[in-house]
Amino acid sequence: MGYGISTTLDSTVSEALDDVRRALSDQGFGVLTEIDMAATLRAKLGVEIPAQVILGACNPPSAYRALGVEESIGLLLPCNVVVRAGSDGRTIVETVDPQMMVEVTKNDELRPVADDVANRLRSALAALSQ
Amino acid sequence: MGYGISTTLDSTVSEALDDVRRALSDQGFGVLTEIDMAATLRAKLGVEIPAQVILGACNPPSAYRALGVEESIGLLLPCNVVVRAGSDGRTIVETVDPQMMVEVTKNDELRPVADDVANRLRSALAALSQ
Repeated sequence: MGYGISTTLDSTVSEALDDVRRALSDQGFGVLTEIDMAATLRAKLGVEIPAQVILGACNPPSAYRALGVEESIGLLLPCNVVVRAGSDGRTIVETVDPQMMVEVTKNDELRPVADDVANRLRSALAALSQ
Repeated sequence: MGYGISTTLDSTVSEALDDVRRALSDQGFGVLTEIDMAATLRAKLGVEIPAQVILGACNPPSAYRALGVEESIGLLLPCNVVVRAGSDGRTIVETVDPQMMVEVTKNDELRPVADDVANRLRSALAALSQ
């Protein structure tokens, strides 16, 4: 099992963040959380890592369906979308693969929800690459 | 593989949230994100679910170590801690089991980090139950 789906963009992390938010919105995701991991580690530990922002994306109908068949699925929500600087000056955008939720929970009733969310995330990444 | 560690409390969700934040802080976790899932689904879909709040807990040294050995681990960060109303009027507090990160990534170098974070989360849950 892989656990991510990714694409690489020529834009900066800051530019990519705007595009990622728009692409997620177009696919029915709200961004519920945002963590600037580089800023957090700088503030807490005084260390530097390449720019990295973790967005928490949620498609409300899918979250509601998932909670209906797996009561502890909140442990794996929302779907993370990481936007981070690659070593070549380009920007990596990766999302968690929702199939991971089926594997981790061993609950086949989650599969249709995971399929739907995976299609939305793949469409968002595809839109970014155009 | 299980994916959660949980305990059940007699307090309300609101009371439990205060205690959970304190217990996490005592174990070196900052709460970086907070999602009121019941309020989100009410606002977006007009549906009601039992009270449920998802906290995103991060121990910065552990996150830094994890990023050093698994560059995409941001997809699985921070560690979710769910505080939700059970069917019996009690409150369920559950955290993701960090060993899940080792299984999902198939990266044994994450194991010592996962062990350390799991110990901290278990200590936080144990403190809540006292």
